[in-house]
Amino acid sequence: MVTNTISYNVYHKTCPSRQVLDIIANKWTALVIGQLADGPRRFSVLKRGIDGISQKMLTQTLRELERNGIVSRTIYAEVPPRVEYALTPLGQSLKKPMDAIRDWSEAHIEQINTAQHLYQQRSDV
Amino acid sequence: MVTNTISYNVYHKTCPSRQVLDIIANKWTALVIGQLADGPRRFSVLKRGIDGISQKMLTQTLRELERNGIVSRTIYAEVPPRVEYALTPLGQSLKKPMDAIRDWSEAHIEQINTAQHLYQQRSDV
Repeated sequence: MVTNTISYNVYHKTCPSRQVLDIIANKWTALVIGQLADGPRRFSVLKRGIDGISQKMLTQTLRELERNGIVSRTIYAEVPPRVEYALTPLGQSLKKPMDAIRDWSEAHIEQINTAQHLYQQRSDV
Repeated sequence: MVTNTISYNVYHKTCPSRQVLDIIANKWTALVIGQLADGPRRFSVLKRGIDGISQKMLTQTLRELERNGIVSRTIYAEVPPRVEYALTPLGQSLKKPMDAIRDWSEAHIEQINTAQHLYQQRSDV
């Protein structure tokens, strides 16, 4: 919990930090931020990099991240216009937490597979 | 990316680590793990601690975390039976990443509020 004059607490339903948690504790957010970690990307490059994301979901995710100041959208006056997405300084501060959850997923999959098999066996008894 | 004999990559749609990311990159998971960080809790205590979570959502979240070996469920033979939820050793390893995203939400809410206002103003032009 961070205390300024007001204190914020994600455990309170009406605290604005709960909405922030909802935006960042999200699979697509974690994947988009990872893709932007190395620098600005165009929509089509992001879409190719995140296997299985739909056009609609990527659009929604980028818009929500832009609205919350995590991602910037820059239009270059070219023909045709080039649009690039990048992490803002605020977004940069999310790189490490998002790396940690993606890395955790990749590092613990075998333990999780084992747990799922054991759970299934217990359920079958 | 972790390499054993197989390598896992959350950016591949069919990689099992993508499903793990889906489970952990979740608002309710982050909140439940935070509540269990200090020790085992009963369902009713968890529900009180996480303002706004429905009975159904808490049941689903706990079941999913149990199925994946992140949370254990222990039934004590008392009258009435007492049921306690706790982090497994695997779940303990998620404490730090989950703390980081909850803390980030609380620490950056004012920057995000400012960004939302600016976005709204640009949209209104």
